[in-house]
Amino acid sequence: MPEKIIIDTDPGIDDAMAIFFAMASPKLEILGLTTTFGNVSVDMATDNALRLVEMSGHDIPVARGVAKPMVQKGLPFPDFVHGKDGFGNVNLPAPKGEAIEPSAAEFIVQMVLENPHEVTLVAIGPLGNLALALQLEPKIASLVKNVVIMGGTVLEGGNMSPVAEANIVGDPHAADKVFTADWHVHMVGLDVTHKVVMSDQVQANIRDKNPMCGEFLYKAGRFYSDFYKASRGADGCYVHDSSAIAYVIDPSLFGVEVGPVRVATEGVALGQTILKRTGYDYAFDHWENISDSSVCMSVNAEAVMDLYESTMTANSKV
Amino acid sequence: MPEKIIIDTDPGIDDAMAIFFAMASPKLEILGLTTTFGNVSVDMATDNALRLVEMSGHDIPVARGVAKPMVQKGLPFPDFVHGKDGFGNVNLPAPKGEAIEPSAAEFIVQMVLENPHEVTLVAIGPLGNLALALQLEPKIASLVKNVVIMGGTVLEGGNMSPVAEANIVGDPHAADKVFTADWHVHMVGLDVTHKVVMSDQVQANIRDKNPMCGEFLYKAGRFYSDFYKASRGADGCYVHDSSAIAYVIDPSLFGVEVGPVRVATEGVALGQTILKRTGYDYAFDHWENISDSSVCMSVNAEAVMDLYESTMTANSKV
Repeated sequence: MPEKIIIDTDPGIDDAMAIFFAMASPKLEILGLTTTFGNVSVDMATDNALRLVEMSGHDIPVARGVAKPMVQKGLPFPDFVHGKDGFGNVNLPAPKGEAIEPSAAEFIVQMVLENPHEVTLVAIGPLGNLALALQLEPKIASLVKNVVIMGGTVLEGGNMSPVAEANIVGDPHAADKVFTADWHVHMVGLDVTHKVVMSDQVQANIRDKNPMCGEFLYKAGRFYSDFYKASRGADGCYVHDSSAIAYVIDPSLFGVEVGPVRVATEGVALGQTILKRTGYDYAFDHWENISDSSVCMSVNAEAVMDLYESTMTANSKV
Repeated sequence: MPEKIIIDTDPGIDDAMAIFFAMASPKLEILGLTTTFGNVSVDMATDNALRLVEMSGHDIPVARGVAKPMVQKGLPFPDFVHGKDGFGNVNLPAPKGEAIEPSAAEFIVQMVLENPHEVTLVAIGPLGNLALALQLEPKIASLVKNVVIMGGTVLEGGNMSPVAEANIVGDPHAADKVFTADWHVHMVGLDVTHKVVMSDQVQANIRDKNPMCGEFLYKAGRFYSDFYKASRGADGCYVHDSSAIAYVIDPSLFGVEVGPVRVATEGVALGQTILKRTGYDYAFDHWENISDSSVCMSVNAEAVMDLYESTMTANSKV
């Protein structure tokens, strides 16, 4: 039985790669895409999610989510990473379909209640929809199967500040609510995603063997890879969101540290995910009575890339 | 010519070890001890500094400093680490002498102005006196020789929270002023001091060969080492403050990363020292236009302990 997942997403080139990866995997069944602001506005994220679904030929509902952070002002959208259209300025036509009636948070609640202990939430954008879903129906905390997020960093430097990663700092108050809820979060952050680099060759291989989405991903991937080559000297692009999908498919490819996580919601540390890594008692214990998370600290990067490439080229689902 | 230093201190067992180490080193000339709250109250710190000077037979002035943090409320004194008397409950008699008239901050300013480019400030407690000295006379920033502090942590877990070290979280607002002043701070934090462990045997060797302070340090060291053995499973005690003295004597024993540091002054990250470790541009750049610090990230721990033991046993200055 494939694992039922909902992907909460702000597409985004990286998100497109992850969504097609999930569609292509026989191990996963996507119940829906829920959208949020982040890489682009929630309007554009919703249209882009619909575009991806239509391009794939799959029948997957898209539910529109929150448009801004819970507390802080919204940040500028990073068009220098994802292009003005979120897809590297490939300028796809408008989608034919529309988002479903329920909001992202309502859809998440509904799916989890209808499929108790079977749904894994995979959040690859800021965490406002998950925080709102928890607020609408706290019972989902005990009824989800798993919660996997792409975001945060512990020892690796951040990408928005020396300690902050973009998805978390995009809505740190929501992120803190998600990490401190009574469920076990699996965090796939920069500690591992900066170790997984997708080369141009892999992207070309997927283009050549995947007529449906390969050409689109390759074109959009030029813009995205160029950003990482220029800004970080990477030999391709970092595999953020697809690493979260890989974690859902095969968590054994990752090494985790287990402990409670809090998110800094103010000051110079804004957006930092702070994992209590030790068993020591501390005078300042904001981590007391907080549910443990599993934080990815190491990764078999080659195996993750092999899983991605083999899934994207061998399978006919996308 | 020995290097002129002022030790800003909150004695404290660890401080006593460091002060006697500095007294014993032919490479250093102590212009004075300035006191602060931290391990104990500033009253007790001042009495304890006087006790150490009198025990040593040296003629070193002691200047009393700040009694509380700049902004936040004072924390409880950690008598479970340093004892109720700050010296592991050895209960020394009252000192005979008194603190000099100028305050710690005034004394620091006076010494730096009188000895331009010759004075190294070595702060091994919370940083209120240095922040106040900078406020009284900003010119000292360009007139000190060096600023070396024991405090903070970058990758190593904190000792007061998962990210906060005691000296910094004791007065984070003062610490941020010190790190962001127009001078170059050398930070000797938990990233290295948790790697330098003083065994009972070393403490016994010093007791046997150092009639003046050895017996006192050994007795006080029992309490301190017992704390680290019980709470951290250490094979002795961590060498925090003496590592800062070792850095002044021989910085080649340490490996540093250079970059600007900010201190979190609020929220769950309170007291964290955040080093910008990369050359990347960040959306949140509270580190822009901040003077670089040199942050110790690696240490030749054996050489530091050798320097400590050889200095404390071979030299007749204490």
